[in-house]
Amino acid sequence: MKPLCSLQWEKDTLVILDQTGLPSHISYLRCHTCEDVATAIKKLSLRGAPAIGVGAAYAMVLAAIQAKKNKLTGDALREYLAKAAQMLRASRPTAVNLFWALSEMEHVIEKTPEEQLTEALLARAAAIHEEDRRTCEKIAQNGAMLFQKREALSLLTHCNTGALATTGIGTALGVILQLHKEKRLANVYVDETRPLLQGARLTATELMAAGVPCQLLSDNMAGYVMRLGRVDGVIVGADRIAANGDTANKIGTYALAVLAAYHEIPFYVAAPYSTFDFSIETGREITIEQRDPDEVRWFNNQASAPPDVPVFNPAFDVTPHELITAIITEKDVIAPPNSETISVYERSLSHDNIHN
Amino acid sequence: MKPLCSLQWEKDTLVILDQTGLPSHISYLRCHTCEDVATAIKKLSLRGAPAIGVGAAYAMVLAAIQAKKNKLTGDALREYLAKAAQMLRASRPTAVNLFWALSEMEHVIEKTPEEQLTEALLARAAAIHEEDRRTCEKIAQNGAMLFQKREALSLLTHCNTGALATTGIGTALGVILQLHKEKRLANVYVDETRPLLQGARLTATELMAAGVPCQLLSDNMAGYVMRLGRVDGVIVGADRIAANGDTANKIGTYALAVLAAYHEIPFYVAAPYSTFDFSIETGREITIEQRDPDEVRWFNNQASAPPDVPVFNPAFDVTPHELITAIITEKDVIAPPNSETISVYERSLSHDNIHN
Repeated sequence: MKPLCSLQWEKDTLVILDQTGLPSHISYLRCHTCEDVATAIKKLSLRGAPAIGVGAAYAMVLAAIQAKKNKLTGDALREYLAKAAQMLRASRPTAVNLFWALSEMEHVIEKTPEEQLTEALLARAAAIHEEDRRTCEKIAQNGAMLFQKREALSLLTHCNTGALATTGIGTALGVILQLHKEKRLANVYVDETRPLLQGARLTATELMAAGVPCQLLSDNMAGYVMRLGRVDGVIVGADRIAANGDTANKIGTYALAVLAAYHEIPFYVAAPYSTFDFSIETGREITIEQRDPDEVRWFNNQASAPPDVPVFNPAFDVTPHELITAIITEKDVIAPPNSETISVYERSLSHDNIHN
Repeated sequence: MKPLCSLQWEKDTLVILDQTGLPSHISYLRCHTCEDVATAIKKLSLRGAPAIGVGAAYAMVLAAIQAKKNKLTGDALREYLAKAAQMLRASRPTAVNLFWALSEMEHVIEKTPEEQLTEALLARAAAIHEEDRRTCEKIAQNGAMLFQKREALSLLTHCNTGALATTGIGTALGVILQLHKEKRLANVYVDETRPLLQGARLTATELMAAGVPCQLLSDNMAGYVMRLGRVDGVIVGADRIAANGDTANKIGTYALAVLAAYHEIPFYVAAPYSTFDFSIETGREITIEQRDPDEVRWFNNQASAPPDVPVFNPAFDVTPHELITAIITEKDVIAPPNSETISVYERSLSHDNIHN
């Protein structure tokens, strides 16, 4: 497994890069069961909405292999797989790619004869995996085109949306890498992204490895660099996008969108089709995961606050669509995103169109 | 010395609480020379604009004691003291209380006969110290009056502006403590304040000790709690205020002011007269201190980013006066702050009025 690759399927095993120790500790989790994968997602060893989706698809293959070993058939088999999907769904409540991938796998379970199930699930998981790779490439190209006439660009990004968050070159970070390839990038400001520092630990590492000029900053410095006129655009990923374009993403995204609007800086979201949740009208319906207070109180076993201080620790926030200049997808750039433009996008991309 | 007291004068020694290890490690620096104090300020063992001012005043007493030991007189003595003041001025470039306190001490040096110099400097330092205590009380009362008709208030604050940043009950945190005393406070959101975590380490500790209901959050969560309608007001301190009300304060303050304006939440600055720099017309003239990149690359003595990643690390930013609802001082509440209202404030508080 090459470094900085979020996951890989290796003969009945899902090998997951444990991202919690990066950049100082590189280690891998060899997952043999669906439970192993759910735990890896819960603990953020595997994170990033697209990567979680791919991981969950493979987890269903692991569940089918386990069921086969246990000689389960008929209703017992279906029940076992339904429970596996349920456990995976409960691992993280906000990223919708997880739910999307699981419903894809359930679709396979419904229509496939028992004796071909494991192979069919593996084929679908591998296809989702491969789709994610190609999707990243297309997002990168569509995103780079948005800046077509600009050179020496200075962009700002938040959290991690690169190879580690996907199984390809990334979403927002894919666009950044494409602009770098086209020699049109002067600098990337990287929010460190407290509390779990995905920007400092993961994005900075990926950009340094790719030779992209970048500067790390604390999250609270983003407004000031905008004020200094040093940011041409903000580009982030997404964990769930409602039918009107309201976007759930890593906590801090909403504040960046308000700051970008105040400074008249374009604010872009880069995300695949699978991040859209057309079943909800607005962002108000998105469940926001609240995480362990110790993430804010502690860092690597070092107290940074009184041990008993109450904490507010939402993992995500919702950015209303009015603050988003465009959503960059693998098919289209949706600008401005709203109920109408997204409904057109949805109709143009029926299930069969996008997946075959 | 009681805990959580930033500094104390003890017979020819300035005892400084080393704030860098708080809340886990409580230790004191016994400063016998002006150099000791300058180093303590540079390393942020002593921090907070008002506390730095008081510390610098005592440092000049230490310099006079040292000069006496060295039997310096006449020009040699004056030169020695001028160099001491110069060294202290260079310790931190942004907080103006430092410069203010030093010019007060230089005023004493100019007008005092040599043989009475140490005693006169000590008397002035002690007076500045005592003034700071009283100033905090008055700011707290003036600030609390602003919220006169409100109960169950939920405020948000940034960095540390309490007993540790001053030698009294604090500036912005003094107002918060006063509101708590009046039982009108439901909650205080405390920004952890990266990179040096003064909010998590110091403010949370002070509020917990005082029994004030509070919740710690990462800096990037402030926009989201405002969006949720949970913040009635933002209140911060200041390191330097220009003649038009533009205010330099801990990095992240500017972003909070923009976010507060967007959500129509009042944004208050609490600071004493000595924080005003009437010699500069606008915030554009304020020097912003850039600090060591490792402050951002490391988190609580643990690497959190690639060791060689470039970093943007300004210690402060400037909030334009248009975004400030009011500046709360020991004499007046200046609302709205601008060249005219501040010029009236300045005229009402000539040097003699405020200091005698």
